[in-house]
This record gives sequence, C-alpha cells and structure tokens, in this order.
Amino acid sequence: MAKRPIIVAMDLEGVLVPEVWISVAEKTGIPELRLTTRDISNYDVLMKRRLEILKQNNLKLRDIQEVIDTMDPLPGAVEYMAWLRERYQAVILSDTFYEFASPFMRKLGWPTLYCNSLVTDAENNVIDYKMRILDGKRHAVLAFKQLNFDVVAMGDSYNDTSMLGEAGVGILFRPSENVKREFPQFPVATEYETVKNIITEFAAK
Amino acid sequence: MAKRPIIVAMDLEGVLVPEVWISVAEKTGIPELRLTTRDISNYDVLMKRRLEILKQNNLKLRDIQEVIDTMDPLPGAVEYMAWLRERYQAVILSDTFYEFASPFMRKLGWPTLYCNSLVTDAENNVIDYKMRILDGKRHAVLAFKQLNFDVVAMGDSYNDTSMLGEAGVGILFRPSENVKREFPQFPVATEYETVKNIITEFAAK
Repeated sequence: MAKRPIIVAMDLEGVLVPEVWISVAEKTGIPELRLTTRDISNYDVLMKRRLEILKQNNLKLRDIQEVIDTMDPLPGAVEYMAWLRERYQAVILSDTFYEFASPFMRKLGWPTLYCNSLVTDAENNVIDYKMRILDGKRHAVLAFKQLNFDVVAMGDSYNDTSMLGEAGVGILFRPSENVKREFPQFPVATEYETVKNIITEFAAK
Repeated sequence: MAKRPIIVAMDLEGVLVPEVWISVAEKTGIPELRLTTRDISNYDVLMKRRLEILKQNNLKLRDIQEVIDTMDPLPGAVEYMAWLRERYQAVILSDTFYEFASPFMRKLGWPTLYCNSLVTDAENNVIDYKMRILDGKRHAVLAFKQLNFDVVAMGDSYNDTSMLGEAGVGILFRPSENVKREFPQFPVATEYETVKNIITEFAAK
C-alpha cells in the first residue's frame, strides 16, 4: 500500500479524447483550423488566429460544440476511466476550454476537469478566451502534493512534461518520437492496460 | 458570468449521505458506536475507542462495508450531484475514510473525494487510521483559490466552518441550531433546490 491516497492527473487531448482542433478542422472542412503550436509557437497568437478563422467562417460556439458532440473518447478511454475512479481519485488537467470539453466529459461520466474558459458575445460568437492560470498542470500537481496526495501524472506532449516531472510517477501516453527521445526518464504506455499496471505497481510500493 | 471557473466543495456526511457511524451503530445494534466528538472531543481518542469497539465485537472492515453498502445517499443527493457536475467542478471534502465512503461514491457516480485512509491487518481488522492532512478541508479550498478557481463550499457542522469562511460563498446545509446561531454570516439551505439557487446566483455575479 502506498503511504498516501493517490490522485491520477491526466491530460485530455491525445490521452483520453482526440485532438479537438484537428477534428474540428476535418469535420468543418476548414483546414486552417489544423494550425497547432508547431505552426505558431506563441499560444496567444495561435488562439487569436483560430478565433479569427471562426469569425470569418461565421462559426458560433454552438456550431463547434455540435461538431465536438459527434466525437467520441479514444477507444478504451471510457472503460479505463471507470476502472480508475473506482480505485483512485482522478482529475483531468487540460489546456482546453470547458465549453469545448463538456461533450467529452458527459461521455466520460463527468470527471473533474481543470481547464480554461471561452468568452462569447450575445450572438454566441467566441470573442476571447481566459487562461485560468499559467503552467496550470504543474501547479495543480504541486497543490495535490501539498494536500498530501501521492500523484500519478499522464500526458503525451511537451506541455505535460513539467507536471510529469513533479509527479511520483509520470507516464508518457502515446508520445511523439521527439518527446519520447527527449524525456527518457518517463515510462511510456501505448495502451490503457499498461497505464493500469503502472498505477497499480506505484500504489503497491 | 463569474470571472473564474467554479469548484463546489462539499462535506459528505449530513450533506450528501447519512452520518456513517450513527447508521453503523443502528444497523449493527452496537449503540456505543454512536459516540461522536460531542461525547469524546479528542478525535484521536474517539477513533481509537471506535476501533476498540469494532475489535471487541469482532467486526472486520468488510462487515462495516457491507452495512454501509445498504445505506443510500440522502434523498435528492444523486440528482443534485448530477445537476452540479454538468455545470461546475465538484469535490467532496470529508473527514471520513475512503474504505467507508466508496459504496456512497458508487451511488453518487464516483465524484472526486479528498478524505483519509484506514489501515487493516491481514485478517481485514481495522487496526489504525491515517489522517491525510490536518484541517484538510480548509487547505483544499485554499489550494483551489491558488489555482484561480472561485470556490463555493457547503457543510453542516463546526468542522466545516473554516472552509466555508475561505470560500467565495459558504453554505450551511441543514446545520444544528448551535452552528446556525454561531455563524450567522453563512446562508442556510435545507433543500438542494436552495443550494442550486445560491450557486447559480454566485456564478452570475
């Protein structure tokens, strides 16, 4: 038995659900929405550009939500979350927005989600966004540690590695080859069964 | 719209589910298990006494869990939690133990729970307990505030008032007359509908 109760902190996109903007780009037929931080490294510039594209295409928040509502969590994610929540505390730490994530949260049984908010006008246009906190994933893991939880963290990309580093065990889930190579200290899982084994082993220490 | 995302932090016993030890006392026919902090003010002395009573009556952890499994959340609590989790983030902050709470968590759809742990021996006897953190409810609310959430807190008794004081709005749910009189600064709710109204009003500020 671990000495302390365990919280499992997980990224959302790429780990439990598909990448939202890429799927929205595909389903709306607006390829420019595929832009990621690999194309525009400054997140604020990238988000402003995305909001501009939504506006140019007259896409309201509800249009995007309807698209997202047609998407499903990754195969096995629902069963994995059900397994997890019966055994440990779980929290999803994401850079996404509550307004985009809620269709997925419904399908995952409304787990706790720490993320950010969109700002809409009276016509349901997305006019701005509000990041709740800078480096929020890492700060959340630090807070759980201060509350005397043992933390397992799981993510797939660069913006997850700071929280993985703070966790008792940090898991890379289906990372890119770059991330895998640059962060060899983290165990890699490509299936939820492997994740379950890593968590169970950590809990037994 | 509130400026920041909202977390609703709630006590468990007396707020969402019945008082566990009192129910266990009734269902096992061991009235001495009704002892509360009103009878023995030192929590550690009280818990050690309870564990002694369990031992004297040869009650294993699984016996207590079976009793707890026959109990239901308070009428309306399941529907209230479903309403809440579709709209806001929710967390239950309790002085109980994960081993006792899990049957209730199943019935409530596995919300996030911050509480404490029991220690059992190889024969499933409860031999000790581990408090995760002192004044854990207040510390959790402080952590949520540091993570830039707006916090609503709800509880029914003295040990909830420090977290209620730290929250953006603190709600007393079915408090005793003493608590109600001593803490007139907190709005009182006796029904979940009132709680929903208070949360909705807070979110609209």
